[in-house]
Amino acid sequence: MTIVRHDTNARMSQAVVHGDTVYLAGQVSDTAKDVAGQTADVLKQIDALLAKCGTAKDRILSATIYLADIKTFGEMNKAWEAWMPAGHAPARTTLQAPLAGPQWLVEITIVAATTPPGQ
Amino acid sequence: MTIVRHDTNARMSQAVVHGDTVYLAGQVSDTAKDVAGQTADVLKQIDALLAKCGTAKDRILSATIYLADIKTFGEMNKAWEAWMPAGHAPARTTLQAPLAGPQWLVEITIVAATTPPGQ
Amino acid sequence: MTIVRHDTNARMSQAVVHGDTVYLAGQVSDTAKDVAGQTADVLKQIDALLAKCGTAKDRILSATIYLADIKTFGEMNKAWEAWMPAGHAPARTTLQAPLAGPQWLVEITIVAATTPPGQ
Repeated sequence: MTIVRHDTNARMSQAVVHGDTVYLAGQVSDTAKDVAGQTADVLKQIDALLAKCGTAKDRILSATIYLADIKTFGEMNKAWEAWMPAGHAPARTTLQAPLAGPQWLVEITIVAATTPPGQ
Repeated sequence: MTIVRHDTNARMSQAVVHGDTVYLAGQVSDTAKDVAGQTADVLKQIDALLAKCGTAKDRILSATIYLADIKTFGEMNKAWEAWMPAGHAPARTTLQAPLAGPQWLVEITIVAATTPPGQ
Repeated sequence: MTIVRHDTNARMSQAVVHGDTVYLAGQVSDTAKDVAGQTADVLKQIDALLAKCGTAKDRILSATIYLADIKTFGEMNKAWEAWMPAGHAPARTTLQAPLAGPQWLVEITIVAATTPPGQ
């Protein structure tokens, strides 16, 4: 199986495709100030990266969600559920953890498939 | 490769099967009060989800274990090792993290194979 | 697809190969005292485990990096970037979390491919 990397620098790639599995780097927002806004930004970035890999949010296999403050769980979920297409939600784990930038309130790490939708 | 989801709601699926790889949602216990009991519950839930996906605990590839208090590492391990079939333990990472429900003391996230045992 | 485990005990395997995907246990250092030294040790251990699985650091798909103190992000990155071959960096997520041993300052969990390099 081939390995294809996207947006690669000395530290990381934003996306790595191995055969028909896609691994995204943890996505964070550098613009929005609150969890609702940062989650919306992160989900847009995930859409863009999945598109680069030839796939989309209806083929996410697993998500790990890191919140700087677990009390924002409800706000994050509201943005998440508005974004997720019905019947296609992935396996998910959410936990609280301090992130690499103190301004980051949420970080989401995705594993997805390139398999065509409906299959 | 096909994608098959189990126990899917607006937020997540409890299990997603992609080809011959299975991704489980982070499992927690809503009944037991201590780490030993919660770990036993979580491991039973993992057994049930893997069975739904046509596989079992002898084909787990990796486990990430989140403990609300890392001082319960020994109690969790006792339940884990009693459950794990000899010679089949997965790659594992354990860390401390506050979980989404304050009553949750342990959460376990599993990636498994549907490959037949012994192979 | 076959499952091959390496360095397996009652609790975990240090590496599990499923088809052409490799899952490593979270790697920690029991010798170095600071983050720079522990990261260098961990990366050497990753090299050795990947070699056992017939692969190498130019085929890492994703890395999750746990730091006991996120303020050591810069020191960890210096060791990481010195080690990573240009153009081959994986998808990566870094967070702060207390680890299972209080002496451990960094833990790194790797998913890699056995796919030949350049592919």
